[in-house]
Amino acid sequence: MALETEILERLSATRAAAAQLALCSTADKNRALAELARSIRQSTAGIIAANRADLDRAQAAGMTGALLDRLTLTADRIEAMARGVEEVAALPDPVGEVIARWQRPNGLEISQVRVPIGVIAIIYESRPNVTVDAGVLLLKSGNAVVLRGGKEALSTNAFLAGLITAALERTALPASAVMFVNNPDREVIRVLKRHPEAVDLIIPRGGKSLKEALADSAVPLLPHFDGICHTYVDRAADLAMAEEICTNAKCSRPSVCNSMENLLVHAAVAERFIPRLAARLERAGVELRGCPRTCAIVPHVKPASDADWDAEYLDLILSIKVVDSLDEALAFIARHGSKLADAIVTGDPQAAARFEREVDSATVYVNASTRFTDGFEFGFGAETGISTNRLHARGPMGLRELTTYKYLIHGCGQVRK
Amino acid sequence: MALETEILERLSATRAAAAQLALCSTADKNRALAELARSIRQSTAGIIAANRADLDRAQAAGMTGALLDRLTLTADRIEAMARGVEEVAALPDPVGEVIARWQRPNGLEISQVRVPIGVIAIIYESRPNVTVDAGVLLLKSGNAVVLRGGKEALSTNAFLAGLITAALERTALPASAVMFVNNPDREVIRVLKRHPEAVDLIIPRGGKSLKEALADSAVPLLPHFDGICHTYVDRAADLAMAEEICTNAKCSRPSVCNSMENLLVHAAVAERFIPRLAARLERAGVELRGCPRTCAIVPHVKPASDADWDAEYLDLILSIKVVDSLDEALAFIARHGSKLADAIVTGDPQAAARFEREVDSATVYVNASTRFTDGFEFGFGAETGISTNRLHARGPMGLRELTTYKYLIHGCGQVRK
Repeated sequence: MALETEILERLSATRAAAAQLALCSTADKNRALAELARSIRQSTAGIIAANRADLDRAQAAGMTGALLDRLTLTADRIEAMARGVEEVAALPDPVGEVIARWQRPNGLEISQVRVPIGVIAIIYESRPNVTVDAGVLLLKSGNAVVLRGGKEALSTNAFLAGLITAALERTALPASAVMFVNNPDREVIRVLKRHPEAVDLIIPRGGKSLKEALADSAVPLLPHFDGICHTYVDRAADLAMAEEICTNAKCSRPSVCNSMENLLVHAAVAERFIPRLAARLERAGVELRGCPRTCAIVPHVKPASDADWDAEYLDLILSIKVVDSLDEALAFIARHGSKLADAIVTGDPQAAARFEREVDSATVYVNASTRFTDGFEFGFGAETGISTNRLHARGPMGLRELTTYKYLIHGCGQVRK
Repeated sequence: MALETEILERLSATRAAAAQLALCSTADKNRALAELARSIRQSTAGIIAANRADLDRAQAAGMTGALLDRLTLTADRIEAMARGVEEVAALPDPVGEVIARWQRPNGLEISQVRVPIGVIAIIYESRPNVTVDAGVLLLKSGNAVVLRGGKEALSTNAFLAGLITAALERTALPASAVMFVNNPDREVIRVLKRHPEAVDLIIPRGGKSLKEALADSAVPLLPHFDGICHTYVDRAADLAMAEEICTNAKCSRPSVCNSMENLLVHAAVAERFIPRLAARLERAGVELRGCPRTCAIVPHVKPASDADWDAEYLDLILSIKVVDSLDEALAFIARHGSKLADAIVTGDPQAAARFEREVDSATVYVNASTRFTDGFEFGFGAETGISTNRLHARGPMGLRELTTYKYLIHGCGQVRK
């Protein structure tokens, strides 16, 4: 209860800061971001020391490999973070953008204008650079932000959040517009999700347990959850192209949500395609799991279990299934996909058109890698996350997706008949 | 539990129908709507008989006045309903609309295309025409719909839902795309809100108890809740215009969410403005409640209590407060408004600009009545509701607001670096 009271008091200050920040000019916000970039660079040693404390704790707890790497900040990564802040400062401000404007027959002039959403809470995991990356995107879009990072990065996150607050203070912006919650207790999430009057939106970036913890959230969610992405190599595919696309979709960064987990191959090209792709992927360290027909073609491949078709590996593992038709591929994707990113490789425009129309995913690719599902790759100038929501924003998000709108209506005394 | 099993089984058929309906052509959907309009007209006697059963029950339970009127369907209202269906058929289909299209430097062609949301549940109250009005708007936008009307209109709603289902069947559209829940038990709402895999969105139209029943919904909401709308008559207002606007905002239809509940008047014009407005409103049957300064100007007016400033009367009642400045008006609206529709009456462009910028409401008016917050009045060609949400859709909704989008990406073998 003490925790709830404390959080609600801080949220009340955050709400007030959100109202002020929403009215700040682009120049004001950019000045604060420039100051933050400067102070990140100047504080490199301090950031590394704070990060060292997290790393020591993580190593003592047995963390190794990719996870430890994600947690680590080096001078180069800190410089990249500062540059990232400057890049966000250089982006156009979405606030105030006129989305549409029209006049009604009665003379009313209606404008639909972008405004900030308000107070947005981000719940994220071990990568400490999210504190700065997400923080500045939200500030640039005029939103106050509640940052609740993972317990592994507590010291680093606290240090970075302190730099943001100080930069806001030094540039006379409302310092309470960034609220860092330095408490790994799950109770924090329970408090946040129960107070829609204090928090307008929660952006959760995490796995199943976070999803479950937020299932009954009274605050709207813009989740970034799982990605079970498919590539379907059609009978009319250019197989050399298919090989490049599949290798890229699986191997270029297997730990992210837009990498391929299931590969579907049309039976007419399976015998030609699967052996050469398998050899290439295995050279790249990928473990393959196959349906019975795949295993008949490449007998050394381990059979896939039922669970494999619904697994988000986020790792160098791929399940392969031979299908007899586009219809079978579509049905498979409808059943096993997570509606984030799916691709067809084909030279047949009709197959491509059906795939685009019938696959109900945020991003549907023809002859390209699913790895392009990303704000930068879409040209949004920023990556504010990849929404697995159907509403408000779907797929790659830019700054605009962190705003809502209001209608301004100008009249000269009109009344409704 | 039996109820839950039954609802989930029906929802599973609705989900399958949603996937089919999403791929139906505009012509297919319009043919079904034309058939529905025809069958509504042909079934006028049947609809009136079903409605008679509801009216008899309601009158036996003591219902009178406006409520009873809302429940009543006459031949004229049924004809209006059929015409409404034809008007929706004539509207442009939002599905397939290309919202944006661009090319990336690597040659990828990206299109953002409107698609239906999926399965949308509407929970509404006594007006039975919502069954048809909302049903056809959702069908036109390619969504399957779960209709859960109020207990007062059960017989009428069931009859009308039967007409929709029959029209879908006769035109070979998936009949399960409309699921009518003929059960007034609140348990129905508990089942719907717990199954985000089965229902993509709930649109609740109702009052406080419905809001509370849905507070922990696992399904996203697009609520249509309260409207506490303000009009601020500035010191620089044209008082004759202000009188027309205030009279319209209060009296033209007091039972709806965009009618005025609180009037703020600048002290510099209060003595000239309040007496003449009060006389006019009182002639129109409005009960006035005033702050102490208002009561000093028009002593017969009853003092407002604290609760009055936060009350959504939805009735011929108005609270009036005298303020000393625009700042005081803005602070009052921020505190007591429901962020739906607020208006300023002023001839001062600077006051108007500050009001527009600082009032954080879905619709902000300068010199016009808040009663224009409505899909038809905005020119959307339809009224699919007025969202009190900040996300996805805010304020008056048209067909577009009942859709989401997906990105289609065309390549020629691009892979991500």
